[in-house]
Amino acid sequence: MSTDTTTTAATPSADDTALGEPVTPRGPVTSASYSITVRLTADGDPASIGRIATAVGSAGGAVTAIDVVDSRSDGLTVDVTCSAADAPHSEEMVEALRAVPGVTVRKVSDRTFLLHLGGKLEVASKVPLKTRDDLSMAYTPGVARVCLALADNPDDVRRLTIKGNTVAVVTDGSAVLGLGDIGPGAALPVMEGKAVLFKRFADIDAWPICLDTQDVDEIVRTVELLAPGFGGINLEDIAAPRCFEIERRLRDKLDIPVFHDDQHGTAIVALAAMRNALRVVDKRLEDVKIVVAGGGAAGTAIVHLMLKAGARHVLVWDREGILSPDDERLSPAKLDLAQRTNAACVRGELPDALDGADVFIGVSAGNILRSEDLAKMAPQAVVFPMANPTPEVDPVRARQYAAVVASGRSDLPNQINNVLAFPGVFRGLLDARAREISDGMLLAAAEAIAAVVRDDQLNANYIIPSVFDPAVTKAVAAAVAEQARQEPGATAPVTDRTTFTP
Amino acid sequence: MSTDTTTTAATPSADDTALGEPVTPRGPVTSASYSITVRLTADGDPASIGRIATAVGSAGGAVTAIDVVDSRSDGLTVDVTCSAADAPHSEEMVEALRAVPGVTVRKVSDRTFLLHLGGKLEVASKVPLKTRDDLSMAYTPGVARVCLALADNPDDVRRLTIKGNTVAVVTDGSAVLGLGDIGPGAALPVMEGKAVLFKRFADIDAWPICLDTQDVDEIVRTVELLAPGFGGINLEDIAAPRCFEIERRLRDKLDIPVFHDDQHGTAIVALAAMRNALRVVDKRLEDVKIVVAGGGAAGTAIVHLMLKAGARHVLVWDREGILSPDDERLSPAKLDLAQRTNAACVRGELPDALDGADVFIGVSAGNILRSEDLAKMAPQAVVFPMANPTPEVDPVRARQYAAVVASGRSDLPNQINNVLAFPGVFRGLLDARAREISDGMLLAAAEAIAAVVRDDQLNANYIIPSVFDPAVTKAVAAAVAEQARQEPGATAPVTDRTTFTP
Repeated sequence: MSTDTTTTAATPSADDTALGEPVTPRGPVTSASYSITVRLTADGDPASIGRIATAVGSAGGAVTAIDVVDSRSDGLTVDVTCSAADAPHSEEMVEALRAVPGVTVRKVSDRTFLLHLGGKLEVASKVPLKTRDDLSMAYTPGVARVCLALADNPDDVRRLTIKGNTVAVVTDGSAVLGLGDIGPGAALPVMEGKAVLFKRFADIDAWPICLDTQDVDEIVRTVELLAPGFGGINLEDIAAPRCFEIERRLRDKLDIPVFHDDQHGTAIVALAAMRNALRVVDKRLEDVKIVVAGGGAAGTAIVHLMLKAGARHVLVWDREGILSPDDERLSPAKLDLAQRTNAACVRGELPDALDGADVFIGVSAGNILRSEDLAKMAPQAVVFPMANPTPEVDPVRARQYAAVVASGRSDLPNQINNVLAFPGVFRGLLDARAREISDGMLLAAAEAIAAVVRDDQLNANYIIPSVFDPAVTKAVAAAVAEQARQEPGATAPVTDRTTFTP
Repeated sequence: MSTDTTTTAATPSADDTALGEPVTPRGPVTSASYSITVRLTADGDPASIGRIATAVGSAGGAVTAIDVVDSRSDGLTVDVTCSAADAPHSEEMVEALRAVPGVTVRKVSDRTFLLHLGGKLEVASKVPLKTRDDLSMAYTPGVARVCLALADNPDDVRRLTIKGNTVAVVTDGSAVLGLGDIGPGAALPVMEGKAVLFKRFADIDAWPICLDTQDVDEIVRTVELLAPGFGGINLEDIAAPRCFEIERRLRDKLDIPVFHDDQHGTAIVALAAMRNALRVVDKRLEDVKIVVAGGGAAGTAIVHLMLKAGARHVLVWDREGILSPDDERLSPAKLDLAQRTNAACVRGELPDALDGADVFIGVSAGNILRSEDLAKMAPQAVVFPMANPTPEVDPVRARQYAAVVASGRSDLPNQINNVLAFPGVFRGLLDARAREISDGMLLAAAEAIAAVVRDDQLNANYIIPSVFDPAVTKAVAAAVAEQARQEPGATAPVTDRTTFTP
């Protein structure tokens, strides 16, 4: 996914600072992701330790742990762990500690980097390998009979190998988080993180495949060639418009589902959030006027899914203005988007689009939405500023104008986070032995997420369940699998033999 | 690897039955890899259970467990687990059980197939993911800082991602075990088994990559493109002569080591065994006359490594006869082999080559070596019939003529098994952050394996340590890493920062 929470249009569609007011200044919100551990020695003065927390606090940080490493009569060695708001803030805290009388800073460790030492994944064996007998069953000579059985019955590969529970997380490193084109090696920590999430939330075995090319033909061919060992392909952080063609061609070629999370994961969660937001404001999807800012990977998928779900009034705004079929500057991908949304050929800028709009969905760039734009929206407006790291408008300010606000921010209500979708989607696909993924399955996933929030729980601050709610992945998986089984040809035959007669 | 133990010449070089006597008939040797579990019900007669073991025994099998599933006054339901010699033998045992009065066979399960259900590997997370803080460090937003650091310092990818401990096990499914070209899907259980061995013996995280092509250019390009996420490439079960070109080109292109186990793993263990065999018979590698049967992947690598180790008298025999530089029928790969071994242009068949030979190494096909051929060898001969599943000559019979015999058979002394080599080789390569693999490292691995057998342990029945001897992998890893560090440019720079200052 392009962000913690959702997405960035892979090619940011508007300048990050040109429009709109700055986000409302706030006190520093510290995060574990910036936490550091400072090893320091304090002299024998009992007050020294007390001064440490004070120093960190005065620098706006928070001490989360003090661990004594060594204690002697003339002083202590301690590890002080503290959360910071960002990297410069960490530096300020270290400076503050250095200034404490009687304290000497020895070493500063960044906990996020320490966590990444050696990588975040490992391979584990599911079979014992202690004795010669174990070896003769898991490997030769026993394995040969399994191989021969698979050569005779290729459908059994899903059942007798890792293929049935395995997903390749494939990237070219071209649109990683909000960082852009950092290449396949530097993208690996994100792909590992994704695999960790697959395991944690859906018990799926995902492995990162970081490709050293950005050529569409090469990416398609490479994924096609390595597909035999995987039950699904999760495309990740591949820039638009390349990602569209790669996904389309792979879907044509492969007999396993191909899912670009930056597109469809984001679209599923956005649709789920919108379903519930409309329940709150009592409007119908068919009736509302929707404005999507950002015609990149995420925006395109969101528009597509909204239309499939029944939306009828959608306008897309991007750097070219409101996308219109009669705009000759548009790329083929954006022209297609314009044709599917703006038959009336409405032209204009974002404020024009927002005039009387019921819903704003932003997957573009930070700070492009002004208060006066929000003020022009219809009553009981729904606003999802999802750009990352900086949303289109500060969600707190947006809430002054809109009835329901959701964003990627984890420190505010209604976090739109792809983790709600992709683990359950692939769990359902694998459970059903799906050969492909359809719009029907994406819609089923969105409806399942929305339905986790019961009527008696629903309100403007709770339209989306927590990422840690175990009901979500289960509900999504069940809905996707059920839908897959209903679609003719969407699933591979089930070879349900549990008995093997020699 | 092509077999449990070592290798088959990827293209069997001689007919499996044309020459030589049949292997000495023996009573069935039962194996856990053919074990079955038979669920049956026995009537109330107390003697029924007793008849079960008798029936299995009379069919030449062995009961390894009887588990009562259900007991009622009118009888028992039991799971009877028994070992068989092969698949038809299992069937005989089931028939014998069906014939027992008062016994009804309900279900027959093949334990090797049951073990493979769902595959043999899974992915595990090395980091906790319970809280929002965990998520913010392992994934966004924290991971973004790690990605940026890697974009700035690509050398750190080996340190801060899985790359540093990860090997791709790559096959095209063209020469799997002794089964031949069964394709990438059917090959997957072998690649999974290999990954299990990597983990079990060297704590390496290996992942199977089964490629749906046998085109050299495509295989090379695909491996090149997915290399960023791996610290090494283990080529597996790729047919000769394609495997030579693939390995050579990948070694040229990649900055991680590429190792075709069917070649070099086999060669390392064969050289180690030969070193110790020559210690037993008190001959020198420089002096002995060596005949290698089979000029495929394994044979080529064995010859190459023997020459590098100092051997000076080697002849290779294959289906064309003794490979000779003046034989115009030879393929380029075999011609190269001939030029490196047979400057005198000796011609003839296997018996001619064996006349007065000190060492026979077979990586060709079953039952090609007759007793009279063995009798023509020099006194104190060394014979390694390593073809699989059927060796060139029954090792028991060979022992009547030769002073030292080693083979792939796990039920006889001196098992030549690649597991002795590849885990330690890659452990050493990864530990040294190797960018390439050299003949010097292969030689170091062979010497290390040989040296595990101390002088006071060495004898004709113990020239090779057990695959379960933990000293082997450690010794190989240390020797390979040491050698890698001594070779200029063979290792990537060590970025040994353990402190990250914000």
